[in-house]
Order: sequence, then structure tokens, then C-alpha cells
Amino acid sequence: MSSFAETIKGTAALVETALDDFLPTQDGPLGRVVDAMRWGALDGGKRLRPFLAIAAADMFECPRVRSVRVGCAVEMIHCYSLIHDDLPAMDNSDMRRGRASVHKKFDDATAILAGDALLTQAFEILAEAETHADGAVRCELALELARASGKAGMVGGQMIDIYAEQKDFDLAGVTQLQRLKTGALIRFGAVGGGIVGCGSSDEVAALSAYAEDLGLAFQIVDDILDATADAETLGKPVGQDTEMDKATFIKLFGMDGAKSKASELVDRCKSHLDRFGVVAAPLKGAADFVLDRKS
Amino acid sequence: MSSFAETIKGTAALVETALDDFLPTQDGPLGRVVDAMRWGALDGGKRLRPFLAIAAADMFECPRVRSVRVGCAVEMIHCYSLIHDDLPAMDNSDMRRGRASVHKKFDDATAILAGDALLTQAFEILAEAETHADGAVRCELALELARASGKAGMVGGQMIDIYAEQKDFDLAGVTQLQRLKTGALIRFGAVGGGIVGCGSSDEVAALSAYAEDLGLAFQIVDDILDATADAETLGKPVGQDTEMDKATFIKLFGMDGAKSKASELVDRCKSHLDRFGVVAAPLKGAADFVLDRKS
Repeated sequence: MSSFAETIKGTAALVETALDDFLPTQDGPLGRVVDAMRWGALDGGKRLRPFLAIAAADMFECPRVRSVRVGCAVEMIHCYSLIHDDLPAMDNSDMRRGRASVHKKFDDATAILAGDALLTQAFEILAEAETHADGAVRCELALELARASGKAGMVGGQMIDIYAEQKDFDLAGVTQLQRLKTGALIRFGAVGGGIVGCGSSDEVAALSAYAEDLGLAFQIVDDILDATADAETLGKPVGQDTEMDKATFIKLFGMDGAKSKASELVDRCKSHLDRFGVVAAPLKGAADFVLDRKS
Repeated sequence: MSSFAETIKGTAALVETALDDFLPTQDGPLGRVVDAMRWGALDGGKRLRPFLAIAAADMFECPRVRSVRVGCAVEMIHCYSLIHDDLPAMDNSDMRRGRASVHKKFDDATAILAGDALLTQAFEILAEAETHADGAVRCELALELARASGKAGMVGGQMIDIYAEQKDFDLAGVTQLQRLKTGALIRFGAVGGGIVGCGSSDEVAALSAYAEDLGLAFQIVDDILDATADAETLGKPVGQDTEMDKATFIKLFGMDGAKSKASELVDRCKSHLDRFGVVAAPLKGAADFVLDRKS
């Protein structure tokens, strides 16, 4: 396993433990919503967004107990969005991360409520004093996360994804969709790490620039994987973009063009981190990882 | 019109204007989610929860520009919960406040996303510096609202409402359901007003005690109206509790017993405010209003 693969596996384990602690099981109907939250949030994926938060905060020597909380908050938002996105009224996906999606395992009502509860708990975690001693820092985190995930961020991206006539999208349209739907939360990961680490506004701006390029590269690779990977490796159905005539970077650039665009973006995103010196190595590693990922 | 009816109409108008400002219309798919948010949040109801926030904050001479924001935040949470609650997967209600519910006016996907966006924006509003100069105060508001509306609050109440075998509920069960499903947000209204007004912890505790009794009275009156009012006056279907064999205070106390219980609670809730003197008159008026309301 590469050194970076070890690193992200380590932070994913920290996040997994913390999420498990944030979602203690209980009996009765209240336990059912928690079970659904756990099904949607635990044993999940690479934890890229929390990794960005933790690795960015590490550069400022921020205690992990704080940055892991920021990571859990953004991951809860990410997981709630997947739960709602998978619903029959939205993408109608039965599989997620290689197993039943939340509404298939439970039912639609429980999936709606579990998503709502994860979304709410993300802000609860950020607002708690354990996240940072300074309330102004906690509020800045909550504000950035709300803006990244609300109508001018991720939810807006979902609306475009569902309702826009994507077949006519040009580069600006596809980029805006990506920036909102997946880019905003990836950006929050890195920026949230900088905020909880009390980086300067210039340093947070550099993290933001890094994450914007990274997010775009991430989406291009996502489009490539949807067109080329198999469902088992990816843990979800493939080929859906083409089937639904969705706007993708492959439609715009072609497969080879998309690959070289992703590669360019990864080079550029790493350059934004040069000012930080050697401590930026994990974030630079994340960029290479995003480019080379197979799922 | 009674003096109190004038008062709550005045604060409702402030809240309406502020909500309108928080939700500016725009073109395209992003405009569609905003239109759905506006449909679910504007022209709505008595604005009881914002009234409690504003009237409680007024006791501490808190600027209205701050307390109206707290009122808008709790109202956005209330409205998102109605939007999601009305979905076919949940209560499947076509009418709300005398007109089409959001998923009937738009569609299910848009209703899910509009609810998510209102939920998110509530925390955005609280986290913004305009809500209070002190970040610690803003975080306390966000934390209280998250706890009131998440899995240990309103969402938990929704789960009980949907999944519990309510026909066997005793008083403790019905009270717990009410406390979570409707009580937690009503309590936040009053407590949030106390927090943004920088009341002492004793004063906030008195507001909490007031709102807990008020919330219970509110739910008992709700049960009475569901059994006795007509759909046109109420602006939503009636008689559903009986039809679905739901646990209600009328099943437990009988109609006369429920009426006297509500009356007792309203007397007691007002007594918690005696310490504040004459400035508590609007909040005491709200208690009488809750008891006497016809819709």
C-alpha cells in the first residue's frame, strides 16, 4: 500500500470511531432513526472530505480532537445528501457503497428523517464547545458549512442535476453543476480544516484554491469511472450518465481530453500549497490519490 | 381584534418580510428550489415560534433585528418539517395552510430539496454575525436549535409518530411524543429569545419551563381542533388522528378532561413568567391565545 493510502486509511479510521460515538444505538422508534443514520454514515468510503479537513488542520498543528469533529460534520452532510439523493423521488438508487441504500434497507420515510437528522447533527457538532474554544471560530465553520451545503451550494447543485436540460450544457454549465454539487463540500473540507486550525485568511484562501481545483479534478475522474469502471469495483451502478444523457466532462472533452484535464488540474491544485512547504505533503498526496483512484 | 391578536399579527409581518428577504427569487433550476422554499415558508400561519423568540427577547430589550433572525431560523425549521412531513412517503398530505403542499405544487424531489435547504439556511442565519456580536451566543443558539430539531428532538418525534404502536400509548408515551415532535421547537422559540437577549441562566430556565407547559397545552388544543374543527377553518384535513388510531390527549383524558388540562397548563405556564413582571405580558398573552385559538 502506498504511503498516502496508509495515511487516508488512518484518518478514515479516526472518523469512523468518532461517527460511531456520535451515533449511539438506542431502543424503540428513536433507535430506528439512529440505525438508519448509522447505515448511511458508517463503514463508508474513503472519507475524502474529512481527510482534507484533518490534513489541512494538521498543517497548523491543530489538535486532532478538533479537526476530526469538523471532518465528521462535513461527512454527515455528505452522507445525508447521498441518502436523500438515492430516494425513489430523486435518483432511485438501490445500491450505495456496495450494499442496500438506506431507503431499501429501511423505508423512504426513515431515509428522509435519517438524512434530516444527519444534516442537523452536523451543525450540532460544529456548535459544541469541543470543536473550538472560540465561539467565533465555531460560527465561521457553521456558516461556511451551511453555505457549502444549502441552496447556493450542494442542494442547488442537486436541483440543477435533476432539472436542468443538461444535454445542452457547455463547459460553464457543467462546471457550475460540479462546483455546487460536489465541489462545495470538498472545498469546505480543506477550508474547514484551515479555519479550525486558525490559519490566516491568505492561508485559508490558498486552501480554498487548492480544493476548488481538486474538486473539479475529482468530478472529472468520477465521470471517467462512471464510463469505464464496473459496478462491483465502484460499489454503485455504472453507465448512468450516458444512459440519462447527463452533462459530463467526457461529453465535452472526450475521454483522453478529460484525462489530461484532470491531470492538469491536479498539478495546479498542488501548486497552491507550495507556500506551506513540507507539511502540505498529505494534501498533495490526496490530489494524486484523487487522480489515480479506481473507485 | 384583541390586543394580543394585533401584537402577534405585527411580529408575523416582521417575520414575513425577513423571510422574504432571506429567500430572494432567481432564474433557472436554482430558482425552482427557492420558489419551493418560498411556497413552503411564506404566507404562513401565526408564526407562533418566531413570536415567542421575539417576545422573549423583547423582555431583555434585545434589538428586533437580532430576535427576528432567531425567529426566522426556527420558522425555517418548522416549515421544512411540514414540507417533509407532507410527502407521500410520510403523512401524504395534499393540503397545508389551505393550499397545495409543496410536493403537490412542485414535485417530491423539489420538496425534499427545498426542505433540506430551509433546514440548512436556519443554521446559516444563526451563524451570521448579524444575529449577535458574540460568537458564543450565536453558537449557543445553533446548538439549542440543533438539539431541538434533530434525532433527540423533532425528528425523533416524527419517528415515534410514524413507527410507534401509538394505540397502546399511556400518558408518558403521548407526552414524550408531543415534547419531541412539537414541544422542542416551541421551547426553542422562547429559549432562543432569552439567549439572543443575553438573559441569565435562571431567566432562560424560566422561559424553558414556560414554553414546556405552553407546548403541551398547544398540542392538547391541536388534538381538540383535529376532532372538532372543520377543514376550511383549520386549513388542513381534520379527523385524521381518530382515523389513524393515533395517540392523542383526547383518547387519554376525554374531550372535557383535555380542555381542563389545557386550561391548567396555560395557568401554570404563565406563573413561570411572574418573575419578569409586566414585560412578560405578551408571552402571557400567547398562552391565552394558544388556549383560545380556533385554527
